[in-house]
Amino acid sequence: MNNMKNIMLTLEYDGTNYSGWQIQENANSIQAEIQKAIYTLTKKEVTLIGAGRTDAKVHALGQVANFFIETSIPGESFKYALNEYLPEDIKAVYSNEVPKDFHARFSAIKKRYRYKIYLSDVERPLLRNYAYQIDRNLDINKMKEASKYLIGTHNFTSFEGRRSFTKSKIRTLHSIEIHKRDEFIDIVVEGESFLRNMVRIITGTLVEVGTGKKNPSEIKLILEAQDRRLSGHTAPPQGLYLEKVFYDIFK
Amino acid sequence: MNNMKNIMLTLEYDGTNYSGWQIQENANSIQAEIQKAIYTLTKKEVTLIGAGRTDAKVHALGQVANFFIETSIPGESFKYALNEYLPEDIKAVYSNEVPKDFHARFSAIKKRYRYKIYLSDVERPLLRNYAYQIDRNLDINKMKEASKYLIGTHNFTSFEGRRSFTKSKIRTLHSIEIHKRDEFIDIVVEGESFLRNMVRIITGTLVEVGTGKKNPSEIKLILEAQDRRLSGHTAPPQGLYLEKVFYDIFK
Repeated sequence: MNNMKNIMLTLEYDGTNYSGWQIQENANSIQAEIQKAIYTLTKKEVTLIGAGRTDAKVHALGQVANFFIETSIPGESFKYALNEYLPEDIKAVYSNEVPKDFHARFSAIKKRYRYKIYLSDVERPLLRNYAYQIDRNLDINKMKEASKYLIGTHNFTSFEGRRSFTKSKIRTLHSIEIHKRDEFIDIVVEGESFLRNMVRIITGTLVEVGTGKKNPSEIKLILEAQDRRLSGHTAPPQGLYLEKVFYDIFK
Repeated sequence: MNNMKNIMLTLEYDGTNYSGWQIQENANSIQAEIQKAIYTLTKKEVTLIGAGRTDAKVHALGQVANFFIETSIPGESFKYALNEYLPEDIKAVYSNEVPKDFHARFSAIKKRYRYKIYLSDVERPLLRNYAYQIDRNLDINKMKEASKYLIGTHNFTSFEGRRSFTKSKIRTLHSIEIHKRDEFIDIVVEGESFLRNMVRIITGTLVEVGTGKKNPSEIKLILEAQDRRLSGHTAPPQGLYLEKVFYDIFK
């Protein structure tokens, strides 16, 4: 165990052809692909710990994962070796050896997600797997007003998807930024951690505020009611990107 | 023939899964997909005239095509009807009825292509089908200097790909703009018309200037030599976009 290293990877992936991050039977997961590539490279079976579980078709620009391995490959070179064996839609963009107590999920202090929307009355082929098409204009100012009610520490039951087994529904959101540039709207959400589908339900609800279906001030009541039926639709997965995971040790 | 209309389409497509614009035997072409969708919609066989032939894996943000058809569908609504039958990676973003003498290719007065490069020492999964990865820095100022030699009317034999049957090699380039933003470099080329692979060979040559393999002033000699062996490599297809086709009637 002399040479045992804790290797951290920062990963970019195109989630289009995957069932999500987490290993599942009879499904094509990103975690399984990476563990397979590590095995092909090193002949060692490892368990990869991911910072966040991304759903099917959700992308990552900066997913973080770690694993323990006895290897002579230097941490910072690991990405080059591993990328030789990874499929073209999953690559390590950064790798390094980190302290033994680093844990991709538990050590994370903040995550940033980006949700991409485009406004168009027709589908755009080049964006079909990478953004959410809305066929009418959105009132950005109302969306910004609505988003303010979500900042801070709340019970987010109304913004949690089904099939969730999380006990505490209390989460802390640090910021929601909404940027419009030409026909594109980006919603950038930062928080300590997130419930299942939370960013997609927040997005769906903000879109309904943007179209006028909901009033900004309703968001407060929706939060308080702790009832998923009152919030908006779950925005589709292809617009969502896990952009960055923050750690204390890299501050 | 009372109701015969000349319909113009502006098309966006993701070229990743196609052998290119033009119909070929035993290949999956964009032209064939659109003609098939028009047939499914109208039960009429048409011949689509495209403004430019894009190669396999090349994309379009604004390819233009036209065809004649007897139909009661209004020109501006044609896109919605047609999009119901087109695959998700090819869509009409605009349609209209145009004068009978409009010809997508012969009426075009100018075309704009965009070539997208990203600088990274590792492959980026989300860009793999949409840009050209260069793993070292490029000297943008030298590339700009080199591009100036290409502007104007020249014999572009040195910048023409193989398997071309075009007689005249004289072409007029109006402008080459090179923009850098973060790790992205866009090369935007406007000209009256282009030889086969011309934008990709111009890009490959400018990249070789950017890395220092070629000097900017060599471009003049390469043009004069009329010899394909002297110019740079053909940049890969996935970075190229047919962005816009210009016509007098829409000025």
